[in-house]
Amino acid sequence: MSGLRLVTAGESHGPAELCVLEGVPAGLRVEATSIDRDLARRQRGYGRGGRMDIERDCVRILAGVRLGRTLGTPVCLLVENRDHDSWRPSMQPEPEEGWIVDAVTVPRPGHADFAGMAKYDTGDARDILERSSARETVGRVAAGSIARLLLAEVGVEVRGFVRSLGGVGLSIDFPGLDAAEVDWASVDTSECGCPDPAVEREMKDLVDSARLSGESLGGVFEIWAWGMCPGVGGFASVGDRLDGRLMGAVGSIPAIKGVEIGMGFAAADLPGSGVHDPFHAGLGAVVRPTNRAGGLEGGMTNGMPLILRAAMKPIPTLMKPLASVDLRDGSEVSAHKERSDVEAVAAARVVGEAMVALELASAYLEKFGGDTVGQFRSSVHVYEAGLEERGLWRRS
Amino acid sequence: MSGLRLVTAGESHGPAELCVLEGVPAGLRVEATSIDRDLARRQRGYGRGGRMDIERDCVRILAGVRLGRTLGTPVCLLVENRDHDSWRPSMQPEPEEGWIVDAVTVPRPGHADFAGMAKYDTGDARDILERSSARETVGRVAAGSIARLLLAEVGVEVRGFVRSLGGVGLSIDFPGLDAAEVDWASVDTSECGCPDPAVEREMKDLVDSARLSGESLGGVFEIWAWGMCPGVGGFASVGDRLDGRLMGAVGSIPAIKGVEIGMGFAAADLPGSGVHDPFHAGLGAVVRPTNRAGGLEGGMTNGMPLILRAAMKPIPTLMKPLASVDLRDGSEVSAHKERSDVEAVAAARVVGEAMVALELASAYLEKFGGDTVGQFRSSVHVYEAGLEERGLWRRS
Amino acid sequence: MSGLRLVTAGESHGPAELCVLEGVPAGLRVEATSIDRDLARRQRGYGRGGRMDIERDCVRILAGVRLGRTLGTPVCLLVENRDHDSWRPSMQPEPEEGWIVDAVTVPRPGHADFAGMAKYDTGDARDILERSSARETVGRVAAGSIARLLLAEVGVEVRGFVRSLGGVGLSIDFPGLDAAEVDWASVDTSECGCPDPAVEREMKDLVDSARLSGESLGGVFEIWAWGMCPGVGGFASVGDRLDGRLMGAVGSIPAIKGVEIGMGFAAADLPGSGVHDPFHAGLGAVVRPTNRAGGLEGGMTNGMPLILRAAMKPIPTLMKPLASVDLRDGSEVSAHKERSDVEAVAAARVVGEAMVALELASAYLEKFGGDTVGQFRSSVHVYEAGLEERGLWRRS
Amino acid sequence: MSGLRLVTAGESHGPAELCVLEGVPAGLRVEATSIDRDLARRQRGYGRGGRMDIERDCVRILAGVRLGRTLGTPVCLLVENRDHDSWRPSMQPEPEEGWIVDAVTVPRPGHADFAGMAKYDTGDARDILERSSARETVGRVAAGSIARLLLAEVGVEVRGFVRSLGGVGLSIDFPGLDAAEVDWASVDTSECGCPDPAVEREMKDLVDSARLSGESLGGVFEIWAWGMCPGVGGFASVGDRLDGRLMGAVGSIPAIKGVEIGMGFAAADLPGSGVHDPFHAGLGAVVRPTNRAGGLEGGMTNGMPLILRAAMKPIPTLMKPLASVDLRDGSEVSAHKERSDVEAVAAARVVGEAMVALELASAYLEKFGGDTVGQFRSSVHVYEAGLEERGLWRRS
Repeated sequence: MSGLRLVTAGESHGPAELCVLEGVPAGLRVEATSIDRDLARRQRGYGRGGRMDIERDCVRILAGVRLGRTLGTPVCLLVENRDHDSWRPSMQPEPEEGWIVDAVTVPRPGHADFAGMAKYDTGDARDILERSSARETVGRVAAGSIARLLLAEVGVEVRGFVRSLGGVGLSIDFPGLDAAEVDWASVDTSECGCPDPAVEREMKDLVDSARLSGESLGGVFEIWAWGMCPGVGGFASVGDRLDGRLMGAVGSIPAIKGVEIGMGFAAADLPGSGVHDPFHAGLGAVVRPTNRAGGLEGGMTNGMPLILRAAMKPIPTLMKPLASVDLRDGSEVSAHKERSDVEAVAAARVVGEAMVALELASAYLEKFGGDTVGQFRSSVHVYEAGLEERGLWRRS
Repeated sequence: MSGLRLVTAGESHGPAELCVLEGVPAGLRVEATSIDRDLARRQRGYGRGGRMDIERDCVRILAGVRLGRTLGTPVCLLVENRDHDSWRPSMQPEPEEGWIVDAVTVPRPGHADFAGMAKYDTGDARDILERSSARETVGRVAAGSIARLLLAEVGVEVRGFVRSLGGVGLSIDFPGLDAAEVDWASVDTSECGCPDPAVEREMKDLVDSARLSGESLGGVFEIWAWGMCPGVGGFASVGDRLDGRLMGAVGSIPAIKGVEIGMGFAAADLPGSGVHDPFHAGLGAVVRPTNRAGGLEGGMTNGMPLILRAAMKPIPTLMKPLASVDLRDGSEVSAHKERSDVEAVAAARVVGEAMVALELASAYLEKFGGDTVGQFRSSVHVYEAGLEERGLWRRS
Repeated sequence: MSGLRLVTAGESHGPAELCVLEGVPAGLRVEATSIDRDLARRQRGYGRGGRMDIERDCVRILAGVRLGRTLGTPVCLLVENRDHDSWRPSMQPEPEEGWIVDAVTVPRPGHADFAGMAKYDTGDARDILERSSARETVGRVAAGSIARLLLAEVGVEVRGFVRSLGGVGLSIDFPGLDAAEVDWASVDTSECGCPDPAVEREMKDLVDSARLSGESLGGVFEIWAWGMCPGVGGFASVGDRLDGRLMGAVGSIPAIKGVEIGMGFAAADLPGSGVHDPFHAGLGAVVRPTNRAGGLEGGMTNGMPLILRAAMKPIPTLMKPLASVDLRDGSEVSAHKERSDVEAVAAARVVGEAMVALELASAYLEKFGGDTVGQFRSSVHVYEAGLEERGLWRRS
Repeated sequence: MSGLRLVTAGESHGPAELCVLEGVPAGLRVEATSIDRDLARRQRGYGRGGRMDIERDCVRILAGVRLGRTLGTPVCLLVENRDHDSWRPSMQPEPEEGWIVDAVTVPRPGHADFAGMAKYDTGDARDILERSSARETVGRVAAGSIARLLLAEVGVEVRGFVRSLGGVGLSIDFPGLDAAEVDWASVDTSECGCPDPAVEREMKDLVDSARLSGESLGGVFEIWAWGMCPGVGGFASVGDRLDGRLMGAVGSIPAIKGVEIGMGFAAADLPGSGVHDPFHAGLGAVVRPTNRAGGLEGGMTNGMPLILRAAMKPIPTLMKPLASVDLRDGSEVSAHKERSDVEAVAAARVVGEAMVALELASAYLEKFGGDTVGQFRSSVHVYEAGLEERGLWRRS
């Protein structure tokens, strides 16, 4: 096996969420505290409801790490669900004789409930919603944290911000030539994950009014990754293309309804001369004055920053519930209320960062191999030195 | 193995393009002529250049089919490249001693050339562009043709149309409740793959003027699939989610820069009550008056038509070539011209249909199993009868 | 995804061993106590050393099971390593500043130590041996326990026994026509996993004398599976063949040096008429008076019991240690002693059962599909009824 | 993707056999003639029947190779079935209206016929036997030929010989320390693939008498691979273990009933001191005076030659046919005769070489990465230099 392979498991109110990440080279420094920082970022956000406070996720490293360094073996990261005990017996793994557990019989529009109840032939939507819940992404973020550490070893960084919330958003498009175009420090301190404090204020106002009116909101987040040399990914086989892989990875995050790279949908409306990025002779390497492609050409990194946007639909559980049907008897009722976030775009952005980091790290490992971080790094350096020598690219 | 597994091979001017499709059940009626119809659709389009006339792709079935029916074994479909002979010796597999083949040393912006030359350490972009070419999609379309036949056995149909071309497009959004909303007959006869003749005329005018000015165009196509019962796909594992799988599959088509499902990016700007599709009690089954989700909830089909849009960037080879650099000596030059299509959105839509059909057929096979079409169909029918009995869904 | 997908994680003296099993249909009754029974069987055996007493593995179900039934989501089974605390700080995941952990610098012949130290560029064999340890098979056995439950739903049972130990073994070959040929009750009570009490006594004598002389022993175990209808597995693709899949699965168990099916190596020495199993007309179905093929023909089950044997090499850690080299300085020394089992063939047999059960259950799921146990079982029944009607096979 | 991925397709009397091999690095010199040499070796052998003469397989390279060098793209190798035309209409892909094709209704013991007819719900065994035929291995051998070329780039060679035929075999066991122990030149010229001319004469006599008596024979072949550095393969995940991977790969060859590595089953009968290979201090590197492990420890190469044996059952089609049942009416009849080889162990050995080469090459690529042969080779060299420096291993 080469590349990373991720498995997650866990029900939202079951004993725990966890992930197993295979393929991490040996010798990577990993500490629980740095993973916890990403988990905390996943929990924050202006529009989050009450459960976030209860949980404060903390990872326990169960496998694959010894004395602060990976062993090259599967890494298992476990996050206990702190409120599991209060969900007994409903969510306990053990059978409960002589106890009737209330079934959730009204599917919530926009959730997996209805299709899941059809699929799994169950009258209790709880059998579905516990796993289809966005809480599953805890495992992805934890694994993504490892992927980020690995990418950092070869000079690659992945970050994201919220571009718009419920229609309120940044009015400018960044050229995408340099990571410094975005004010990442502001992103980090923003409760909405937004780099522009003025826009953030508007976003918070919108959240406040949505909360009052029992509404929910969605938004668009943007992920940047930079420091990648050209040639990661590929076009030889359908599954090599990094565009498809990244769209698939980010598109697998619950509530994501669209993904675009670089100019994305806007590219479809312009003539070729306004879309493609010309090459020019630079000092010692080819340079490109634009990055409209968003860092990918022909299914590969092209040496420019990767820029990807994803659209998140509004949280489907509204305090002003939508019409639904009780599947026990077919009567029309209001949908069940399971959660009370108004929006979670800043959190989804953290999941997006994780998915992009996992996919990039995997593509790097597939290209460069290496059972240890040292071997991996050394292969990358030899390759990058070759590019530099050929005048194709140089690390800035 | 369950589900479909696709491999394609072939260089654009090499001997042939081909695909091997594993996992097709036995007993499916397959004929070369019906595959050829899809291949012809892939070649057509108002903006196509001269090569399309030369080629007229015809498939040869090499394996997996006996006397017009699949055997359950890998299906191999081969399309000879008719102009291969005129590309000798440059593109022949055999070594050519004492013959100097001209190298392509100027990477074309927007293509795989530059990143590929970096990746594969070659000074000749022909080593790259022959495989990164969109001609690779011949194999996908041929395989998709088999997937469509399989889906037809369980009442599922997949079709697509061009929604916009270079910014000229349909002004309305279809409700997406019924396939009959789209005038598919007009789509079929349209040179631009557009259901509205008035819009098509505008599109053709735009193509004409782009051709005159040496420009190229992109556009947006929309794929519909209907007849799927709810519960295909899943949310148990990251890779089960049909949203991500479809975005990944369509996003792996060359030149696609964005994919969205249902309302897509527009959903990010609206409040929850304007996005989610309520349930109502219908005659014998739950009904939904809207399909803003585009047929997927929780990573699964929800019983409504699937609606997916993809953005294609303009063809990167412009007759008015973009600035580039000759990598032999670093001098600034104009990019190499390999092809002369002005646009190929209608063709890309056919590839999109194929990728959606392959992914849906695979998800169906994973859920229902079956080594023969009869076994597969029978499992689907038993499941659908159960949904009907439970009042969840009925085939219209 | 269809079929089962297994991931295990855990270091021998790390916090825990665990597995995640994806693809289990919903509605399967699972209880920790029945998994614990298999884990206990894995720990028993006449030749085991002291650690087995310390551990007494108990599983904790972390995911995929609600109120005693699977949800169709990934099942996670965790077994804490009870002696982990006494291995701090050496085996803790957290970094330990200012503390020197003793390195294991002498590779043990027959273990992963040497090749692993080369691979992972480490001077401490503990980085290797903690994961290469047979304790990794805890996760396989726990997962196998789920696979057995699933197989039981369609009338398939998997069991194994020890055929020989250090050269002492059963002198007869069972015809393999009927599971009742083997005295499974004796196997269960035997400390050596052997169905013949007289042979078992010999085996124990051999273990006793090996223990005295500081030696270790290997042996051969035999796995039977019965109740499978013909046609599970396949020949369409290389990876479909159940022979290869089973040999690969059992051959991946640490210490296994050979695997054979049916007559196995003996078949190579006989003429065709002495190896192949003729067909005869029976009452309502074809019958076969012999099962020399061991239940597989053409990569598929053929309706007869599956019979598979595997050779386990002697435990590589001897109390009378083998010659080795200290890799710190190249000096010749005696190998490190990590464990003190004399033999573990009965335990390896339990792992073998698990691997066979996992592979068979996966092949069943791939063929029959089904998101719930009910759907799965129903597809199997429809298929089996068809075979019966065609006079090909009937469940006895 | 990293590592090799092989797909084969083709029916025995259909238009062609072919393979697609993904993951081959760019820049590997490949010529059809060298592949044809391996294909010819697969067709030879003292016990082969008449069809071998008709066919004389010749490969046509359809994709992945330009001017004698791989491109890094999928390699497609096609072998036309020369007698396909004489099998029309029975084996043509096109439907044949108004023509009745004779069905094969009597399953042959030892073949896929019976289980396949059950699986695919067909009354015509030809639907089964065309693909389950050993002719499928043409594609494996062609792909294996590419794998060998790649391994040769890093100093690894794979070869095999026939150890025994119908019980007649070599009486000695090679120490396995050095490839020169086997007289490979004699193997190459032997019609039975046997290194000892005296034994070969006995084998031929046995074949002659088997032919006279209408019998068929099986045998044991042995594959050696040498030049591998230690640390290829792994133990981190179940699927990393090279033992299991190799047993699975060789066990997937039709007619193989057992696979063993190193001492194999003999190791199960001996005490640990007689099985494990001690380490000694050598000149500049650790040395081992024995290779009873057969080159694998802990799922990895250990720097010694890999030695693997496989048992092939006798050809199941006998000229003196076995009893069977006509499935049309249930009457007892003699089995259908499709082929007339007496034995094909020398040929199966060539397939075994191919499967071992593919698996080793894949494990190498997974460990070392590299999009070009140069990058791949350079990673291997850096790693091997490190081993040498650490005194662990040196290339002899």
